[in-house]
Amino acid sequence: MQVVEKIAGMRHLRRQLAEPVGFVPTMGYLHDGHLSLVRAARAESRSVVVSIFVNPTQFGPQEDLASYPRDTERDLTLLTKEAVDAVFMPSAAEMYPGRFGVYVDGGKTAGRLEGACRPGHFRGVATVVAKLFNIVRPTRAYFGQKDAQQVAVIKKMVADLNMDLEVVALPTVREPDGLAMSSRNVYLNPAERRAALTLYRSLCLAQRLWREGETDAGLLRRKMVALIEKEPLASIDYVSIAGAETLDELDEVKPPVLVSLAVRIGGTRLIDNIVL
Amino acid sequence: MQVVEKIAGMRHLRRQLAEPVGFVPTMGYLHDGHLSLVRAARAESRSVVVSIFVNPTQFGPQEDLASYPRDTERDLTLLTKEAVDAVFMPSAAEMYPGRFGVYVDGGKTAGRLEGACRPGHFRGVATVVAKLFNIVRPTRAYFGQKDAQQVAVIKKMVADLNMDLEVVALPTVREPDGLAMSSRNVYLNPAERRAALTLYRSLCLAQRLWREGETDAGLLRRKMVALIEKEPLASIDYVSIAGAETLDELDEVKPPVLVSLAVRIGGTRLIDNIVL
Repeated sequence: MQVVEKIAGMRHLRRQLAEPVGFVPTMGYLHDGHLSLVRAARAESRSVVVSIFVNPTQFGPQEDLASYPRDTERDLTLLTKEAVDAVFMPSAAEMYPGRFGVYVDGGKTAGRLEGACRPGHFRGVATVVAKLFNIVRPTRAYFGQKDAQQVAVIKKMVADLNMDLEVVALPTVREPDGLAMSSRNVYLNPAERRAALTLYRSLCLAQRLWREGETDAGLLRRKMVALIEKEPLASIDYVSIAGAETLDELDEVKPPVLVSLAVRIGGTRLIDNIVL
Repeated sequence: MQVVEKIAGMRHLRRQLAEPVGFVPTMGYLHDGHLSLVRAARAESRSVVVSIFVNPTQFGPQEDLASYPRDTERDLTLLTKEAVDAVFMPSAAEMYPGRFGVYVDGGKTAGRLEGACRPGHFRGVATVVAKLFNIVRPTRAYFGQKDAQQVAVIKKMVADLNMDLEVVALPTVREPDGLAMSSRNVYLNPAERRAALTLYRSLCLAQRLWREGETDAGLLRRKMVALIEKEPLASIDYVSIAGAETLDELDEVKPPVLVSLAVRIGGTRLIDNIVL
């Protein structure tokens, strides 16, 4: 496994990689969710590239850029075991030199939900992913459905800017009790860890009600909110029932529907979703 | 010469083109300025692709999108003579399907000069050029220095988004009397055609004063403005003396400096520039 820190080095290495090239962009601190993406890339590609880059432009000024968990040594050990060919691990200065100024604006899809709560977040995501795609030139790129809106924004960017690659979204990987895997789960103390289950429980409630025939999206939202509000450590950013591609809020549940939410558990902001 | 109207068709053709691929994006109604770019591409590449696309997203609502001159038959005859391999000529609906929404924001460089007079212009330019680059995947792309700020914005986009190609800027091609060639010159009546010379004359004045030792940028601007104001058919949008890369306005002339201007001659808006 080759580890490359410079853009020029990655470009050079890329020319030697056999096609097709599978690519998994990450912010590191890898968990089983990331590894499920790496395994899918490995199964479907002759070469696999993983990037590890905590992207500053997708964090707001009040967010957790400085404290975002990092463990590069462990990450590289895990990726070696998965028979990854190359890890691209640039510095912030390598990706954003002085006078950097051109951004990809994710448009309407990027303004909703996470984009409304975290202004500029998806501009940062779209920009860094466009940069990584241009450097790595993958055949296929793999993302977790846990970041459902990120998947929607990146698919829209690839389509609208005519990027010549396929975006693959894979199911959210969960802990045995249902909590969606996230690098940020490490922030939770034991009481918060228990309280965090309220996200998945509220999604399961919406799914059960819908399976029982409920199609009133407003009612589903209210039931989810009522369940989460029973948890004293939880504070809701949003609970959304929206069209899965447009992310327009719905009155009536008509599949494919994205049920998604962002909830603060103590000081930690968690997101989760299911698709009906 | 193959003429392709669909993105899928262009991608297919691209796979068969020998490297390196030279690319000249145009809005058609070709003149000797465009042809100088095509000849450079021809001389330096094994394959040459030209695009003809009057890009709606770079025109403001009050601008000349509908009346922009078009003569596809003549364009294709000219390009055949230049031994171009492929012409990509998509429709607006092919490039901007319904629900299009992701744009490339050219940043600070795009907000000055032309960008200040034509809000959204360079967002449209950067977006369509990014799309064309992703579809055509050129080794080198050729642009005229006559659109100096466009060159600066595209070079910045290529650098900031790590696009893997070279941007080549070639000198402005002029009529024998000095008027910069432009598809929009066709709008000028004989009196306006004579009046239009004031642009180049004011640039020559700045160059002469600078060669004689004048380094006060404010004084150069005032002398240029005074010369243009003598022409009754001319109305100034801007006269700028700026850093050639940053486009920051300067107090003191320190090369490389972009001297640029936009002037309306009757109903026609013309631009021109020189680099000191």
